[in-house]
Amino acid sequence: MKIYGDRNSGNCQKVSITADFLKIPYRWIDIDIMKAESRTNAFLQKSPMGQVPVIELDDGRCLAQSNAIIRYLANGSSLLPDDPFTQAKIDELLFWEQYSHEPYVATSRYHMVYLGRSKDEREPMRVERGEKALDLMEQLIKGRMWFAGDALSVADIALLAYTRLAHEGGFDLTTRPRVMAWIMRAEMALGLPPAGKHEE
Amino acid sequence: MKIYGDRNSGNCQKVSITADFLKIPYRWIDIDIMKAESRTNAFLQKSPMGQVPVIELDDGRCLAQSNAIIRYLANGSSLLPDDPFTQAKIDELLFWEQYSHEPYVATSRYHMVYLGRSKDEREPMRVERGEKALDLMEQLIKGRMWFAGDALSVADIALLAYTRLAHEGGFDLTTRPRVMAWIMRAEMALGLPPAGKHEE
Repeated sequence: MKIYGDRNSGNCQKVSITADFLKIPYRWIDIDIMKAESRTNAFLQKSPMGQVPVIELDDGRCLAQSNAIIRYLANGSSLLPDDPFTQAKIDELLFWEQYSHEPYVATSRYHMVYLGRSKDEREPMRVERGEKALDLMEQLIKGRMWFAGDALSVADIALLAYTRLAHEGGFDLTTRPRVMAWIMRAEMALGLPPAGKHEE
Repeated sequence: MKIYGDRNSGNCQKVSITADFLKIPYRWIDIDIMKAESRTNAFLQKSPMGQVPVIELDDGRCLAQSNAIIRYLANGSSLLPDDPFTQAKIDELLFWEQYSHEPYVATSRYHMVYLGRSKDEREPMRVERGEKALDLMEQLIKGRMWFAGDALSVADIALLAYTRLAHEGGFDLTTRPRVMAWIMRAEMALGLPPAGKHEE
């Protein structure tokens, strides 16, 4: 398998974290999104959506969309339990992450890390909705070890990717102690080095 | 099963279209999002995300996020083939719809239909990205009957919901003849009355 991605992108990191955890061998191919390498004709042949990450299976078939990829890789593993309703609750979190978390938390980080804006130059609407998303995570994880079911799942990996990098987008996690504890738990379970200090 | 939803919302219509097609009995409970009925304490008990649609199973368990719901309802039916890679390509489209189509096509419609703005008062960024999403659909459906696999699937239902209402958001589908033909095909297969003239 090949993974086409940008190593600094949380969406791309979801895929390598999942593949590493499941010991799925892959070759990583760097795609520099700031040089529009996801918009070349060669790349658009692999995925007309023009976004990273994309995986290419050994038979040449390609798949895009980070959460679709990690769900596919996790088939039959502990990261995606067989029970249909547990899978549906995982999907609920995967869709919520892409609709109500990533566009605010990850995009604010993009503005600071990729575009070099200061914290004050972030977009107020994205900051407000990012704060709300992190608050909801603090509420959802109350009394739980993991976000869906009884074990670490792809829902945790999807939520972890940008939440552990939220401080790079100017968000302060110290007011969300349960989320901070979950990040440490998930990083340990996945064998990841700690991503940061979780403060601004 | 109960469906909590707003009948005018495409995301909610996805759920009733899927349930009707699969002959799953349900009771519809109107939630008026303009009156913040999805933010009441009673509703947040069912789904802390505070968004519609939500389904409540007969045993009281609840599930939110339109695409997670229709994927769950479709388990074991023709709308979700068993093959894991076909399911992954369906997921790819479900995530793309929520990230790259709905926030632009549906939100522009929301601004016009719910907030009463004129076509010129739409947000230019959302219009531009909505046009791009519709263009990509025209490209993806070329040479195909359905968006994923060989048959009508939940990917078609997810994409149909707001694409068939795009004219209400000021988008003109007449320049996308393949998308228009697919809409008519999907509406017929699903037993839906035609949604509109597909023009501004």
